Amino acid sequence: MEQRTDIASLGEFALIDHLTQEAEIKNASTVLSIGDDAAVIDHFGKQTVVSTDLLIEGIHFDLMYTPLKHLGYKAVSVNVSDIYAMHANPTQITVSIAVSNRFSVEALEELYAGIHAACEQYHVDLVGGDTCSSPKGLVISITAIGEVATDKFVCRSGAQVNDLICVSGDLGAAYLGLQLLEREKKIFLENPAVQPDLEARDYIVKRLLKPEARKDIIEWLDEQAIQPTSMIDVSDGLSSELLHLCKDSQVGCVVYEEKIPIHSETKEVSFDLGIDSTTCALSGGEDYELLFTISQAEYDKMPMQEKISIIGYITEADKGCFLETKQGNRHPLIAQGWKSF
Amino acid sequence: MEQRTDIASLGEFALIDHLTQEAEIKNASTVLSIGDDAAVIDHFGKQTVVSTDLLIEGIHFDLMYTPLKHLGYKAVSVNVSDIYAMHANPTQITVSIAVSNRFSVEALEELYAGIHAACEQYHVDLVGGDTCSSPKGLVISITAIGEVATDKFVCRSGAQVNDLICVSGDLGAAYLGLQLLEREKKIFLENPAVQPDLEARDYIVKRLLKPEARKDIIEWLDEQAIQPTSMIDVSDGLSSELLHLCKDSQVGCVVYEEKIPIHSETKEVSFDLGIDSTTCALSGGEDYELLFTISQAEYDKMPMQEKISIIGYITEADKGCFLETKQGNRHPLIAQGWKSF
Repeated sequence: MEQRTDIASLGEFALIDHLTQEAEIKNASTVLSIGDDAAVIDHFGKQTVVSTDLLIEGIHFDLMYTPLKHLGYKAVSVNVSDIYAMHANPTQITVSIAVSNRFSVEALEELYAGIHAACEQYHVDLVGGDTCSSPKGLVISITAIGEVATDKFVCRSGAQVNDLICVSGDLGAAYLGLQLLEREKKIFLENPAVQPDLEARDYIVKRLLKPEARKDIIEWLDEQAIQPTSMIDVSDGLSSELLHLCKDSQVGCVVYEEKIPIHSETKEVSFDLGIDSTTCALSGGEDYELLFTISQAEYDKMPMQEKISIIGYITEADKGCFLETKQGNRHPLIAQGWKSF
Repeated sequence: MEQRTDIASLGEFALIDHLTQEAEIKNASTVLSIGDDAAVIDHFGKQTVVSTDLLIEGIHFDLMYTPLKHLGYKAVSVNVSDIYAMHANPTQITVSIAVSNRFSVEALEELYAGIHAACEQYHVDLVGGDTCSSPKGLVISITAIGEVATDKFVCRSGAQVNDLICVSGDLGAAYLGLQLLEREKKIFLENPAVQPDLEARDYIVKRLLKPEARKDIIEWLDEQAIQPTSMIDVSDGLSSELLHLCKDSQVGCVVYEEKIPIHSETKEVSFDLGIDSTTCALSGGEDYELLFTISQAEYDKMPMQEKISIIGYITEADKGCFLETKQGNRHPLIAQGWKSF
């Protein structure tokens, strides 16, 4: 009998590694290939950075509570976030969509209104794409291209022992926004007469539906002349991203629970829903904040401000990756990001 | 009541135009944007070309008769064909796939074996991508990046009056390959005991399942120092592509039926199936040959060979676009390419 390995038994990251291990580099212009947020291509003076994402209805978004304009905006944000995570500036995107006949032209106009708004926001040009029909559901594929001064791109693999671990903004809100919308969807499906109760939950809902890529952080780092030693964007939850950074940099880390930035609304809703807010930050995902490391020498340049939090430090690999709780206990970090399979 | 325009009422090309008309160019590096086979990005000495395609199971391919390895190969061929159609060389691709749990790891290995084989063939690096689950069916999104000497890229819009119209290889075979496989599928579904009858039909079946992008034609043009005035790849049928070229170049054309290159096997099978072989060439699609125009001054450089056929010439726009039949009658060319909606 033919061998059959279940995809679920590998997991997404192992699957990509597995499927792409053969990919041998043929062009001198390919500076960095698979395995980071984006690839890097050399172009005589500047380097080009490429990143791509595929968004599938029913997997990545639910049109029952996702306005199409927000979806278009988010699809671009998520992609340019990967470009920023390379310390690069996005310059162009391509957008391909597959739609079934249940979508009207007006619906697609809404989607593209969001895409165009994001192009304005991130100063990128929509330069191409493909549109075709789908037997079922909406598929969005976006490729973002960016540029960076030669060898100034920042990989996941550059973290050094004693580096400080920094994260922008706050974490865990998008995950709670999703829980809230899923709850309201369930209530609505049981009784369509009940109106959604999202009052005073603007922040977490917006964090899920209309995330912003942190262009401002990259600009700020440039102004301060801070070159991070490693960087990644937080799409699968802090734990998962920290483990990626540490694995690729061959280091360990300690992160302090009390230093993890969590918005007051996130704390309130997590309390209401009976979910630990630290767990939301560690495993929730979809925050699209930037997680990066800097050498201790840069410490004085870091402001004590809301925009960036220093949450821990890098250790030797053999020390492992730990969370130090508010009570002073150390727990190993475990990747519990959203599973695609 | 809210307005609802059916997508089918616009058609694919009008839909893309409609959705992307707002896309204003923001970056000086964006040399050419939406509306050609690929975008062109300036990178200090060379220009970068980008093209992207989305392939959806049940729309673009049928896994009942498409081996996954062939599908992977074809997905890459189709994309790099767009890069060649810009007179550029592909250098990198990204590949994103969404798969449902019915696919095993071994099945994906087959798909990637085809992708890797095509990367070898076209000398491109697989530099990134995304893998996620799909509620139903396989989705493949490929973006190809290529490079071209500054301002040597060839658009659809450069054809001049009196230019010669050339096409590589032969046309109409892939369409007949599809008809044959669809016929065998129908027979198989009615009676699984019947074995497929594809004997001596290798050529047309291969043209459908494993098309080659015409890298050799671009190399040959370079060797001969021939700079086409306009170029497009034949994905939707000769008529549709000729009309694209003429519209974008604001010219008309005359094409001679007897000059359209059609393979002997294509002629045989079209006769067997009772389909006119010229119709297959004009409206069939998926040939992935290169259709281009050259100035008459280049005529002497063109060899009388199978690789490239001169099929007609460019006229003033007000003369329209015509096919001159073997009987000497002129019929207006009509786009009847495969409709996505």
